Amino acid sequence: MKKGGSMKKILGYFIAGAALYFSFAGLGYANTTVSAEVQYIFNTILFLMSGFLVMWMAAGFAMLESGLVTSKSVSAICAKNIGLYSIAGIMFWLVGYNLAYGIPEGGWIGSFSSWSDASSLETGYSDGSDWFFQMVFCATTMSIVSGTLAERIKIWPFFLFAAILTGFIYPIEMGWQWGGGWLSAAGFSDFAGSTLVHAAGGAAALAGAIVLGARSGRFTSGGSPKAMAPYAASSIPLATLGVFILWLGWFGFNGGSQLAAGTLEDVSSVATIYINTNLAAGGGVLAAATVSRLAGGKTDVVMMLNGAIAGLVGITAEPLAPSPLAAIVIGAIAGVLMYYSTKLLYKMKIDDVVGAIPAHLVAGVWGTLAVPFTNTEVGFGSQFLGTISVVIFVFVVSYIVWSIMKATIGIRISKEAEKLGTDKSEVGVIAYGIRD
Amino acid sequence: MKKGGSMKKILGYFIAGAALYFSFAGLGYANTTVSAEVQYIFNTILFLMSGFLVMWMAAGFAMLESGLVTSKSVSAICAKNIGLYSIAGIMFWLVGYNLAYGIPEGGWIGSFSSWSDASSLETGYSDGSDWFFQMVFCATTMSIVSGTLAERIKIWPFFLFAAILTGFIYPIEMGWQWGGGWLSAAGFSDFAGSTLVHAAGGAAALAGAIVLGARSGRFTSGGSPKAMAPYAASSIPLATLGVFILWLGWFGFNGGSQLAAGTLEDVSSVATIYINTNLAAGGGVLAAATVSRLAGGKTDVVMMLNGAIAGLVGITAEPLAPSPLAAIVIGAIAGVLMYYSTKLLYKMKIDDVVGAIPAHLVAGVWGTLAVPFTNTEVGFGSQFLGTISVVIFVFVVSYIVWSIMKATIGIRISKEAEKLGTDKSEVGVIAYGIRD
Amino acid sequence: MKKGGSMKKILGYFIAGAALYFSFAGLGYANTTVSAEVQYIFNTILFLMSGFLVMWMAAGFAMLESGLVTSKSVSAICAKNIGLYSIAGIMFWLVGYNLAYGIPEGGWIGSFSSWSDASSLETGYSDGSDWFFQMVFCATTMSIVSGTLAERIKIWPFFLFAAILTGFIYPIEMGWQWGGGWLSAAGFSDFAGSTLVHAAGGAAALAGAIVLGARSGRFTSGGSPKAMAPYAASSIPLATLGVFILWLGWFGFNGGSQLAAGTLEDVSSVATIYINTNLAAGGGVLAAATVSRLAGGKTDVVMMLNGAIAGLVGITAEPLAPSPLAAIVIGAIAGVLMYYSTKLLYKMKIDDVVGAIPAHLVAGVWGTLAVPFTNTEVGFGSQFLGTISVVIFVFVVSYIVWSIMKATIGIRISKEAEKLGTDKSEVGVIAYGIRD
Repeated sequence: MKKGGSMKKILGYFIAGAALYFSFAGLGYANTTVSAEVQYIFNTILFLMSGFLVMWMAAGFAMLESGLVTSKSVSAICAKNIGLYSIAGIMFWLVGYNLAYGIPEGGWIGSFSSWSDASSLETGYSDGSDWFFQMVFCATTMSIVSGTLAERIKIWPFFLFAAILTGFIYPIEMGWQWGGGWLSAAGFSDFAGSTLVHAAGGAAALAGAIVLGARSGRFTSGGSPKAMAPYAASSIPLATLGVFILWLGWFGFNGGSQLAAGTLEDVSSVATIYINTNLAAGGGVLAAATVSRLAGGKTDVVMMLNGAIAGLVGITAEPLAPSPLAAIVIGAIAGVLMYYSTKLLYKMKIDDVVGAIPAHLVAGVWGTLAVPFTNTEVGFGSQFLGTISVVIFVFVVSYIVWSIMKATIGIRISKEAEKLGTDKSEVGVIAYGIRD
Repeated sequence: MKKGGSMKKILGYFIAGAALYFSFAGLGYANTTVSAEVQYIFNTILFLMSGFLVMWMAAGFAMLESGLVTSKSVSAICAKNIGLYSIAGIMFWLVGYNLAYGIPEGGWIGSFSSWSDASSLETGYSDGSDWFFQMVFCATTMSIVSGTLAERIKIWPFFLFAAILTGFIYPIEMGWQWGGGWLSAAGFSDFAGSTLVHAAGGAAALAGAIVLGARSGRFTSGGSPKAMAPYAASSIPLATLGVFILWLGWFGFNGGSQLAAGTLEDVSSVATIYINTNLAAGGGVLAAATVSRLAGGKTDVVMMLNGAIAGLVGITAEPLAPSPLAAIVIGAIAGVLMYYSTKLLYKMKIDDVVGAIPAHLVAGVWGTLAVPFTNTEVGFGSQFLGTISVVIFVFVVSYIVWSIMKATIGIRISKEAEKLGTDKSEVGVIAYGIRD
Repeated sequence: MKKGGSMKKILGYFIAGAALYFSFAGLGYANTTVSAEVQYIFNTILFLMSGFLVMWMAAGFAMLESGLVTSKSVSAICAKNIGLYSIAGIMFWLVGYNLAYGIPEGGWIGSFSSWSDASSLETGYSDGSDWFFQMVFCATTMSIVSGTLAERIKIWPFFLFAAILTGFIYPIEMGWQWGGGWLSAAGFSDFAGSTLVHAAGGAAALAGAIVLGARSGRFTSGGSPKAMAPYAASSIPLATLGVFILWLGWFGFNGGSQLAAGTLEDVSSVATIYINTNLAAGGGVLAAATVSRLAGGKTDVVMMLNGAIAGLVGITAEPLAPSPLAAIVIGAIAGVLMYYSTKLLYKMKIDDVVGAIPAHLVAGVWGTLAVPFTNTEVGFGSQFLGTISVVIFVFVVSYIVWSIMKATIGIRISKEAEKLGTDKSEVGVIAYGIRD
């Protein structure tokens, strides 16, 4: 693995490449020696590779949530996670993609021009690979919601909400920015979705948590909330696995959002994004570990796990511009904000089983607002506008949808069912069989 | 992540690329601007990347099966899975690859010309990368077998069967098609192995289940089978993780089977395959969820998990030709077939612990027979011929091998050992230590 | 998936490519048709893809160790693993990389010239992608340490040691070889780090185990050690998952250490490395299974898991030169050595909870010393020199650091805390909540 070992060989290539480079440059075509077709292939591979990494995040959420809920609500959370991922794919194909793209410049909603898989050099990548990459982002948004509402929501109303969020709510607000809509025209910047994905998912979860109400017995009069999940978690190692999966997937999430890997500049940017993404996550972990140790006495592993996610969410709005040090700081602040907003939710008696609102909504808002600190081309005003618009839109629409469902089909299991656990009442399969 | 942001840059490349393109086209060389060496590299990377994704499926099967068996049979299933994957690699190198390739045109068996790792532009990819990719398919076929036979089979006879299947049975039938043998000549079509891998693995498992017999006490006189694994499963979240791993790995399984990624057309096809693979899996999940809810009352997560696998297996014979809608339908039908064939196996008193026969054999046959619906170049006759030939060949040979082993070294643990569990009797390591 | 199906198309490309090839060759530039920029992109993608696979190994160690410790020490091992990975990233950026590179030729320590992310064709790859790839190697070295010291070490002193190892100890010895230092000048060869990473991590773990002492009650007077973890393991399937993750990650570990994928030769070498890595792991598994069955009566799954790791570690020093058969043998011998050195550690009353010293230190030394058997350009003398130098350096420095920490801040939890378990005493979160 010795570096520089093939220096001479590389030098040879360099001369050959440089010759080709200047012959192109001389013709004034473009500042690269990579042909359009080779670029197309590299870009498509970036989408596919990043796409499967982000798809893998669906497993991460499933494991994180399975690990953090109590052992009588685990099968249900597994069913919800694999179900929502399935729904997201189908709804994003059926409706979502068409609402998000083909927006008239500065507009509010897509032209419903169906996505075509026609391969053409002009777009610079396979449309299908882009669709796949966008779809897994859509699924991620919904994955955030499932953990918050665990242990008390009915499965099929949850699936209905999943269809609405992945088919309509997410694609509409995402199109405002990435589809070339009005937010994009207003100068908003959200590289990979601190707001468009994470704060949006957190806002939908918050609306659901309020409409659904807390778990029975969670908030007794006075004092701290009753020890329930995540502090009677079914499996901390599964939750840890979930966070490692998310961390891995995030290289695809942020790295793939460079959208191109077919030039020296683009692929180098992807590398920078990997580094900043990793450092921000580390900052979030260590900040949460430190704060929990200093403020709570123990080195709380649940806070470290959510600290990693908060750090990752925080850097997602701008993973390219920050220096390594700035990335660490952005992640660390996200971790601290996550810690204190968890406590705040307790005080507000909002029951977020796995802590998704602090890790995704709060850290997402932070990350988006922090973009101008490292990217001077972006202004605080447009960041504020974008964050507020998306969060309010998603929260209000979700609140209305949850409320209508509550008033009609019902969204909450019975008290008896809750005592029994969703695994027995909803799924009919106990998560952990009798142990020897 | 805004699309179209670098339109102008891309346009520049396009012009440059087009110039180069037409200069080639003018020379009549080939309909691509990508040089042979660059194509070689892209193709090899496709094999390596897809290969490691399919290798990862070995972990998926290990987790799915560990999760679905009872807690006293988990260490043994782990030992079997890591053992069979090890055996597959060595046997496919020692024998298998040589039986599968180098077949005389339309023939039945390979020329045993040892695989060479000589790099040459003419083959279009590194032979070694192809070997790696083929090897993990071989291992997958055997992984399917281990779950069905869990909780009652002896480890070392299982390993012996693994050596025979991965060294001989699978390579021979696979060579009939992918090695250019007689099935290929007969017009059979199986893009990534609905039949060659999945139905074959399921057929070997079925033979084993019949020869081995059901678990003690599984089928009492009359009524439904006694509640045993997968309904006293050791860990539903691990089983869910296993399915997510398989789902991820399947992008390599089907996507890599395009065998090339070095042109605009090839890499775009890989993208289409990713999309169809994902949609079919989703269709399988939702169909199984719906059927189990309507027919069984609860939203059975085990059925959803096997529904995902059935959907994936179903699309594997033809993941490129179908429209997205067709992919969803193929997957959904596979999920429904899986559900009812599970019930059928109960009635036939065939004990398939994790449901591998419905998910792999039944869904595999369905997927292969369904190819002509979306790929008009393929006929029903040749599909029927191929499916029947492979399934019968693998079933009969496996049945004979299992029977000989049963009559000689024995394949089943004692009744006392079964009561104790394979973990204590075979492995000597309890899977889940005492809990606090 | 039929091979050879697009032979004619490929032939066309070949002619086109060959024409371009000879036009370059005629100019005497270099023995490749791949332009410098395209090579740069391929090399960078190799680093990024291999890097995320190695990052994933951090999850592998977390799962392996979580699975093998007792259930009252699982949350703590999760906290330690995610913490050390976070620390490694930050310390390697802050200090480590700068100590490892920029070494004067044949020197001992880096010039502390900060790493720059400047993209340049001359280096042949993105500096950032290389940094990311090197960083995950650094983290791996520390991951090895955590398992050995489980169940009795304090979290924050462990984190302090992690900072010292990842910021100073590992980068210094690694720079001796891969930074172009004195060991490299002395002809030492360690392709991907059998010694530089694995034996080094094992040596640091050994020093820690000696200074820290064994778990309470582990070694009673006479007889074999008391049955403790890994034989009262919290979850064998999680440990198995961990090994599969490591196995997958190792394709990045060894394959990425080719450092280039932009020519036919380089990418073909990566393929060969994948094959040998896989076969060696399989050899380790089967050897350990056989030895444990013959010597111990049962087919010990814990030994099979550590056998896989031993095989992987053993092939890491030279994964390119060996024939497939040699790779199997190297892995199998590593598995046997692991088995007997585990027994030896028992006799020496050194308490290595998960068996990291046999699997990483012993197998790492074996793999490094075995290089000359398959790579004739390497001599036994320099291999011996390199192995001894690195192991002694890391052991002695680690021993001193552990001893100073022991004498000052303390590194071991109290006897009461140990009885309670690190999860309750250190982390405050039970790993597995009450089961139904």
